[in-house]
Order: sequence, then structure tokens, then C-alpha cells
Amino acid sequence: MSQQVKFLLPEDRIPRSWYNIQADLPKPLPPVLHPGTLQPIGPDDLAPLFPMELILQEVSTEREIEIPDPVRDVYRLWRPAPMYRAYGLEKALQTPAKIFYKYEGVSPAGSHKPNTAIPQAFYNKQAGVKRLTTETGAGQWGTSLSFAGSLFDIDVTVFQVRVSYDQKPYRRAVMETYGARCVASPSNETAYGRQVLAERPDHPGSLGIAISEAVEIAATNPDTKYALGSVLNHVLMHQTIIGIESMEQMAMADVYPDVVVGCTGGGSNFAGIAFPFIGAGLRGGPKPRIVAVEPAACPSLTRGKYAYDFGDTGKMAPLTKMHTLGSSFTPPGFHAGGLRYHGMAPLVSHLKELGLLEAVAYHQTECFAAGVLFARHEGIVPAPEANHAVKGAIEEALRCKREGKSEVILFNLCGHGHFDMAAYTNYFAGNLKDEKYNEEELAMALAGLPSVPETA
Amino acid sequence: MSQQVKFLLPEDRIPRSWYNIQADLPKPLPPVLHPGTLQPIGPDDLAPLFPMELILQEVSTEREIEIPDPVRDVYRLWRPAPMYRAYGLEKALQTPAKIFYKYEGVSPAGSHKPNTAIPQAFYNKQAGVKRLTTETGAGQWGTSLSFAGSLFDIDVTVFQVRVSYDQKPYRRAVMETYGARCVASPSNETAYGRQVLAERPDHPGSLGIAISEAVEIAATNPDTKYALGSVLNHVLMHQTIIGIESMEQMAMADVYPDVVVGCTGGGSNFAGIAFPFIGAGLRGGPKPRIVAVEPAACPSLTRGKYAYDFGDTGKMAPLTKMHTLGSSFTPPGFHAGGLRYHGMAPLVSHLKELGLLEAVAYHQTECFAAGVLFARHEGIVPAPEANHAVKGAIEEALRCKREGKSEVILFNLCGHGHFDMAAYTNYFAGNLKDEKYNEEELAMALAGLPSVPETA
Repeated sequence: MSQQVKFLLPEDRIPRSWYNIQADLPKPLPPVLHPGTLQPIGPDDLAPLFPMELILQEVSTEREIEIPDPVRDVYRLWRPAPMYRAYGLEKALQTPAKIFYKYEGVSPAGSHKPNTAIPQAFYNKQAGVKRLTTETGAGQWGTSLSFAGSLFDIDVTVFQVRVSYDQKPYRRAVMETYGARCVASPSNETAYGRQVLAERPDHPGSLGIAISEAVEIAATNPDTKYALGSVLNHVLMHQTIIGIESMEQMAMADVYPDVVVGCTGGGSNFAGIAFPFIGAGLRGGPKPRIVAVEPAACPSLTRGKYAYDFGDTGKMAPLTKMHTLGSSFTPPGFHAGGLRYHGMAPLVSHLKELGLLEAVAYHQTECFAAGVLFARHEGIVPAPEANHAVKGAIEEALRCKREGKSEVILFNLCGHGHFDMAAYTNYFAGNLKDEKYNEEELAMALAGLPSVPETA
Repeated sequence: MSQQVKFLLPEDRIPRSWYNIQADLPKPLPPVLHPGTLQPIGPDDLAPLFPMELILQEVSTEREIEIPDPVRDVYRLWRPAPMYRAYGLEKALQTPAKIFYKYEGVSPAGSHKPNTAIPQAFYNKQAGVKRLTTETGAGQWGTSLSFAGSLFDIDVTVFQVRVSYDQKPYRRAVMETYGARCVASPSNETAYGRQVLAERPDHPGSLGIAISEAVEIAATNPDTKYALGSVLNHVLMHQTIIGIESMEQMAMADVYPDVVVGCTGGGSNFAGIAFPFIGAGLRGGPKPRIVAVEPAACPSLTRGKYAYDFGDTGKMAPLTKMHTLGSSFTPPGFHAGGLRYHGMAPLVSHLKELGLLEAVAYHQTECFAAGVLFARHEGIVPAPEANHAVKGAIEEALRCKREGKSEVILFNLCGHGHFDMAAYTNYFAGNLKDEKYNEEELAMALAGLPSVPETA
């Protein structure tokens, strides 16, 4: 390991602006629809849920949006994040490809999620908001918003999916350590939660239900707003600091990627690394292949329909056009909780429709095998979500080997697996199953998609 | 947070040498004794257990020992580690003190332990060793040696204390992810393990027993050596990169510490941050106060006897003069597993006897309270061990407040708590107890200390 393995930018190279890909889209995003009227909505319709600064970012077509100084100050706790050359992995694969990875697990929350949690907490604080509500499944997002809330002195209430609340008490402990309040969802604290519990008192909960509960609290309390950890345009934009830093680090390494790989659940870490490269291509620069890797058990990009759908189960959130498995779809159990969402970010979906990215799906056991190989040769144990990106990068490297090409592969290692070792325990014990979703259930969920006016 | 919070050295400032405090001791260390003859031993007596390079480091009085390039190459994965100014904590405490902390949780294993695991694996590999054995309690050391073994392609067998093996399967999963083999101790794989199990088949194990098993395997297999994660001179020396980097980072911040604080179990992270400052004082430089913080449930420095004792329960390891609670002492249950050792590093003990450091003991609940306060204002959730250092630093800051002094306090945050959230769960549930050790048992353990010839 005598070559340079780590590419670390000095602190003053933390980006001063986020990159907004809406400025470079060849065709604008379809409009967002009101959940009641199914008509396009304006900024004011979103005001009960989000502070105006974030709403304006959601619809902005400015290419660069300045990062406020207090946000950059907090980013400095762990940013710029390192980029590594994966010499150990290359050697293990005997590939001529050059593999680089950006590592977002260095944040105090252990993942990329604070990149958006921090600005969301900041803009809400600035707008005088006293409390943020949100949902969490596996816990990464809830942890990150709790962390941000503690630093900006804003209360955080997290609706944690019941099954995760019961089975993963450690995640709750992290959120509580940061001073947040965790509520098992479905709960008695919202009308929607009570309705779900009335139908099924032992309901295990779902991300869609937890979103509905968090949205309801925000919509009905003037001092409370809602924060979402992925999917929305402004969330994806906040993550672009990953790709902006990576571009500069690739220049330090004197290379440019031929392939950029990220894992996709709601789409935020993927967008973070990919959008700056896609944007550069749209503005006349080189066009690397962009590969989104998703779980085969919840394959919104590869098996979902590009259609308008609700973001939540309670149909309180606005409708967006996206690749969706249907808001009533329930994926089978698998360990990458961060990738269990029924839909895909509208921006990622739109870019897929425009042919600007590819998508591929893998089963969890092959992703864990990839993660273990990575850990043994690179020293970092990836989160189960990140294992999908590792798997995607390894497949590209093996293709390069077959084709005798020494392409440059860049992928985003979006978080470490220290919170997720139970999943590795199951993997080593041979207890992981590659369950396929139920085809009938998917068909039903897709058949139940809302019909929206043609104009939308 | 508009001031500078993070002090990060460029990669080429990773130290080129470790600092060996034995060069500056006003009085040399008492000799190490053979466990059979109780007579001073020479390097050859240690050869079955350690490679000669490490044995020579153990007894060296050279001030600087060069760090081999392949070790520095691996250090580059996460070093130099950041130092932070704790503005958030200062504000919360309303103290005039300036609090700085060095953060070692950025390593892939989440603690300072890889600082010595890497060179130990390197020197063993260089000596042709095929396998390393070691013990682990909480799992931090086993994780770190497994990590190092995977990078230097050397097999690692970890004897994990049975109760930890059963209760903390996630730790085992990390070690297995790195390719190590974990064995619950006491085991049937050693004569000593079989002897313990014959007496009590359901024995929960202890660190002292696990050490005996690991030592036995190394002593009886020519291709196998033993690795220890703390206590020994060379282990403490490898950790001095923490303090060397900190000195340079303090200079960046244009300050010098008045007080240096670390938590002590075996003594390695404490030595890592403290020895370079103690050494500078011994060579005529400023002399900050040096404060070792230990758990009240296992208080070797504050309640132990400075005497010769065995490092293990099976009395196979050499005897060293140290502050000890007796090798048969069993501390009550508490959550900082890394601080549950009956003895203290001979070098730390010697410096305490020479009046070059102070020691203080705190109970676990007050340490968790300190850790939660820290997390909410600084954003990082500390490991339960590190909470002791946080508590020590907070007490110093509150003293400064009472005395109206704006002293500079530096402490070592030796690891993150992501693997230890069960302990925080217990803390928030009000289930943590501050158990005192049994005074009678301590008296018996101390009465059972070996008697050694006066000459030693």
C-alpha cells in the first residue's frame, strides 16, 4: 500500500454552494400535485410542512445555491469527507479497473444523512420553528435529524416504524442521546395512527404510515414543521456536496470516472455523488455511465411504474411523478432498511426516463458477500445499504477484467455498518434469505395508483 | 460555531516516529519477572510470545522509534486524527476554560486500538508469523486486531470472554467480517480452558482467563504469536502518535494544555495522549497536570496496590510491577468493558509513583450523564470508556469556572459509542447501577498477590 490511498481536501474546500441539477435538465420536472385536488401546487401549499427557504430550493432552477455559513461550520465537524483508491479491492479482484470510493461514514451519525439534516434544521430554526417531526425506518435518518436538532437547539420528534422501534432499541438510544423523542408508529398521537391501530392493534408499522403521522403533526401544529430524509429535490441537492468534493478529489488523483455507482432507496446518496457528474455532462463535459443499484426486494427503478403516486400511506403528502411500486406495496423483509421505500426520488426517476442513468437490482446475500470482501481488503465495514453500491462497483470492475479495460470506477460508500452488525451476524449464520416480493401484491399496488388528470 | 472547531493536520504530518518515554524516565522501570522463577527475564524469554522487533521496543530506551512505511501507509486510512475545540460543551457548562479533544473514533474500528494493532500485525508478518492470538472483552481490541490481520494477511484467533461472546454477538460479527476466528473463553481449545471448564462448566469467563488461553496457544505453536492490546510498553508507545499529533494541533490552535485528561483501563489511550506531554515536561518544557480517569468499580490506580502481579489468571504471563487489584479480582458489572482490567500498565503505574500524574475515579452513571451532555453539544456519541475522559474534562472545566480560570483542557475521546448503544439504552431506562466492588474480595485478591524476591 505504498501508493496514495486517501485523497483529502483541506477544510476550506468544503463546497460553498450546493449544485441544483434542475438548472441543467433538458426537460423540466413534472409538477407536484395536491393530495386532495390532484392539481399542481405552488409554494404556499407546502408552507404548513416546510420553511419557505426549503420550498424555494425545492422549485429553484438556479444552478448554485449558496450554503449558509452556520451550515458549513457544522459540516466542518467531518467534511470534506475522504475519497480512497481501493487498491486492496482491486488486487483481490485482479481487475485492471481503478476503483475509487467516497466515504460518507465519517459523519458523527455514520452516514451521509447529516448533509441534509443540518441545513434542514438550520432553515427551520431561522424560520422560528420550534419542533421538527420526521419518520425513520432503520434509524439512520432519525439519528441524523436528532443530531442536527441538538446542534441547532430545535426539538425533534421521530416516528419510528414499530417493528424497528421494538427490534432495534439501540437506534432509539442514539436518537435519545441526541435529545430527540422517539414514538413507535403507528401511534396514538395522530388521528391517522389511531385509525391504523383501530383496524389492527398489533400493526408492525411501515415507513409510509410513519410519514403520514409525522406530516399530520406538522400540518396541525403551527410551531412544528416536517423534515424528510430523501426523495425531495432540496434533500437531493444538499447531498451534492458529496459529488462536488469527489470531482475535486478525482482531479487530485488525476483521473475522471468512466462509471459512477451509488445505491438507491429514496435516491439521496446516489444523487449526491451522481448529479454533479451528470450535470457536468449535460453542460458539455465528459459523460460517465451512471449506475443506480437497488435491492431486488424493493426494485422501484427496475420494476416500478413511472407514474404519479403518494409519498405516504395515509395519502396526506403531495403526489409526485416517480418510479413507484405503489404506496400500498410492502417489500419482503431484508436488511438494508434505508432502501425499503416504495418510490424513487422524482429527480432520479426523471433522469432515468431521460436515459441519463442506468439501474440494476441485486439480492441482499450477494451484496453482503461484496461488503465482506470489501471489509477484508479495504478495512471499512459498510452499512447494508452501502453494500449494494459495493456490489455494483465490483460487478463493473469484473466487467472491466473480462473486457481488459482499465476504466475508472467511482462509488459512494454512504455509511459504515457499525449499527447493523446484527445483519452481518445473520449473514454469517446463513440465515439471510433473498425473498422476492409478491408479484400479485405488486400488481395490485400498481393497479391502485391514483389516476391523475392528463394535464399533470 | 463561527470559530475554528476542527484542527486537522495534512497527511504528511502523520508522525514518522513513536515516542518512547523510557528515554526520559528519571528512574527506570522495575524489571519484568518470569512467571515460573520470579526472576528478571531477558528478551529471549519473551520470544515464544512476541516477535523480536516488539520485544526490543518493549525494553528500548531510545527516545524515538521509527514508524515503518507500511504502518504509516495504513495509518493514512484515518490519520492524522482530528482535534476539536469543544465550543458547544464550553457554552453548555458556562466555563471560561478552553476545552479541546482529540478524536480517535475516526478509525475503521471506531477507537484508538488500531494504532497498535497495525504495527503489531506488521512486525509479526515481517517475522514470518502465520497466526496471532489475542483476547477481547468488550470487543474493541479483538475488532482492531482482526482489522489489522485482514490488511496484513495474517490469521487472527480471538478468545472472547464467554459472557461477551453470548451477549454481544455483534462484536463477534465485526471480527468475523474481518475474517478472524472467535472462540468463547473459557474454551476446550486450551489446557487451561479445559481446566477452568472442568471446575465450572458454565464459567462466564474473564479477561484474565482469555489472556491465559491466548498466551497458551502462542507458547505452544511455533507459527503463532500473541498480541496484547494495552498494558505493555510497546503498546503504549504505539499510541503516542495520538499525543504527538495533538501537540502539533495545539500549536495550530496557538495554545498549550494546562491539563491533559484520559480514561484508563490498561492505560494505552491515556498513555497515547499523555506521554508526549509528560516527556516534554521531563525534558524541561511546560508541565501540564496529567489526569487519569478510571471507573470506580475497577479502580486500579486509586485503590490498587503498587506491586508485582501476574497479567493473567492462569499465571502464564510474566509478572510486572503495577497498580493492581489482584489478578483474581473480579470487578462488578459495568458498561465500560475496556476498563475492566485488574492491573494498570507498568509505565503508567511507575509515572504515578513518581508523582508525574494524578488519578481519579468516577461511577458509570455520572460518566454516562457526561457523555450525553457531550453528545448533545458536540455531536459525537462517545464510547462508555471515553465517557470517563469526558467526565474528567467536565470536572476540570467546572473547577475552572469556580476558580475563574480560563485554563486549556485537552482530553482524548478514544472511541465512538455506536457499538455500545445497549449501554445507553440501559442508562436512559434508569437501569444502570453504580455497583461498588466487594471490599472483602479486593482484600483477598490483594492478600493473594505473589511474593517476589526483594531484589526485584
